[in-house]
Amino acid sequence: GVLILATAIMPVFDINTKYLAVAESPGPMFSKLVPKQSETSKILYCIYIIFTVVLFLLLCMAGMPWYDALLHSFSTAGTGGFSNKNASIAAYDSFAIEMIIAVFMILFAVNFAVHYLLMTKRHREAFSSDELCFFGGIVLLSTVLITLNISKQCGSPIDSFRYAFFHVASIISTTGFATTDWLYWPHFSQMILILLMFIGGCAGSTGGGIKCSRILVLLRYIKREIRVTAHPRVVQIVKLDGQVVKDKTITSILLFIGAYMAILLAAAMIISLDDYSFAVSFSSALTSISNVGPGLEEVGPVLNFSILSPLSKMTMAITMIIGRLEVFPILVLLSPGLWRNR
Amino acid sequence: GVLILATAIMPVFDINTKYLAVAESPGPMFSKLVPKQSETSKILYCIYIIFTVVLFLLLCMAGMPWYDALLHSFSTAGTGGFSNKNASIAAYDSFAIEMIIAVFMILFAVNFAVHYLLMTKRHREAFSSDELCFFGGIVLLSTVLITLNISKQCGSPIDSFRYAFFHVASIISTTGFATTDWLYWPHFSQMILILLMFIGGCAGSTGGGIKCSRILVLLRYIKREIRVTAHPRVVQIVKLDGQVVKDKTITSILLFIGAYMAILLAAAMIISLDDYSFAVSFSSALTSISNVGPGLEEVGPVLNFSILSPLSKMTMAITMIIGRLEVFPILVLLSPGLWRNR
Repeated sequence: GVLILATAIMPVFDINTKYLAVAESPGPMFSKLVPKQSETSKILYCIYIIFTVVLFLLLCMAGMPWYDALLHSFSTAGTGGFSNKNASIAAYDSFAIEMIIAVFMILFAVNFAVHYLLMTKRHREAFSSDELCFFGGIVLLSTVLITLNISKQCGSPIDSFRYAFFHVASIISTTGFATTDWLYWPHFSQMILILLMFIGGCAGSTGGGIKCSRILVLLRYIKREIRVTAHPRVVQIVKLDGQVVKDKTITSILLFIGAYMAILLAAAMIISLDDYSFAVSFSSALTSISNVGPGLEEVGPVLNFSILSPLSKMTMAITMIIGRLEVFPILVLLSPGLWRNR
Repeated sequence: GVLILATAIMPVFDINTKYLAVAESPGPMFSKLVPKQSETSKILYCIYIIFTVVLFLLLCMAGMPWYDALLHSFSTAGTGGFSNKNASIAAYDSFAIEMIIAVFMILFAVNFAVHYLLMTKRHREAFSSDELCFFGGIVLLSTVLITLNISKQCGSPIDSFRYAFFHVASIISTTGFATTDWLYWPHFSQMILILLMFIGGCAGSTGGGIKCSRILVLLRYIKREIRVTAHPRVVQIVKLDGQVVKDKTITSILLFIGAYMAILLAAAMIISLDDYSFAVSFSSALTSISNVGPGLEEVGPVLNFSILSPLSKMTMAITMIIGRLEVFPILVLLSPGLWRNR
């Protein structure tokens, strides 16, 4: 869905949109499930609308005023994180509302192709998605680790779980809602949230970040490299969902990760001109490129970015768009060569 | 030189050392300059010893006691950063000593093949090295930016330059000497030093880090990708020193950078269990994998890592070895598969 804008603009500039598609992640894709492009869009928007409506109704039932419910449904569906309350979701202080939103943040961060498979009763295919298992595993592991880590602070294990699960869902889905100021958590929990900002949602979801499938391919390729070095005579391939990942796709993914890091560090360097600490500059850049929302220290989850200079804000805005549109489409549009030759 | 240990151990485990060589950076290599392996080692050690002796003599002439001069020569040659003074090089408070050490830190962070070309009077070949230009450019740019950034604090422009150049040389060569506590500098200057920790020295030098040639290939490949997307009909290749960089080499380099980031973040996560700030955990992990020395905040240039737990120290030790031996050789040795099948 994110690349629709890009593919709509690019033909004007005679840009190879097919080439762009190569840079996309592997895994279950609509193109493989539904042959027609028009059909794909219909199903995609259908799932999006159904989920949003269900979320809206559930929030109303949980006692949220209908206007707030509508707004938070839209905000959750787009994994945007905008709230009409300054305290974000904490304003409602309702266990039910928090859990409903947390579950839907996770649902919107899952590949929509998986939802489609589930809706067409192909459960086995859906649950055999490597990316889904990886994503689920990370959510589970992070929630458990943070629950244990903050249990001393929170008192009851249910409260610990409530905070841990909500914020893991909020950060990995790159939504950015908050129900507590997690800057008061132990730094281990904060570091986990920072790592989740890098990872982000699944490919083909509304979440941002590097995306689970890319991280998974990176980790499998590292594993393959180690095996090939240890046992040179054994043929090793990188597989995803039982299919071989092409070398070209792997290179694209590795390049994506490299470019992601380069832009992140460049943005952090510009933001550091404001003379805030390393944590502020780095987390501002990271939260921008991954489209999350909160950062660390002076730009934490219950604060905002008003302290930063216009230059930093512009840098963050551009970084957000670069991150949102999968890095390369925007780099192409920003490159002087494209405009010079016309 | 760094891979000698690895290539010495690996045949015991039937590991493909040729495969490892592919992962090495492109650019001027001794293998291309000198045909025989034994010849290579001789020339390599010759340059190393000559530079160390010259440095020792210069330091003595600049007024350093002979024992200290010997120790600091060894420490500079290996870009290690060990000093017998707690205040490091600041203890001598000598402009001459600082500049001599700074220049030699830079020399030891340059590809030794370039030194060999210079010694055999092939100046043109030496100075046409893309990596050398890139490395020189970064040193120059960083020094200018930091000099301007700290000029208010330091008073005289000469003092600003003295501090800026010394620390740029110290960090990019991954030596880690210090003449002032740069944690009091503006955060922009600190961020530049952090970025230099990522970059590190040239390939074929005694410096650590990702290495300039790899960063250069990454940047050129990003540029190529943008061009290919903008002008799909134009054939684009990545060149280094006028020679085409093979796809396999590019993939190896991108994988190296991906693995570097993954290990860095994993190490930072373990160190964050000590509950120090994000800057401490992240910079401790970064300074370990890049073999630099100083970090940020509680582990700054005039402090040490004694505050960290044994677990963090062990993590840092392993990360240092992984970084020093170019990541994959150590991952192979640490992989359970290697030991299981024997």
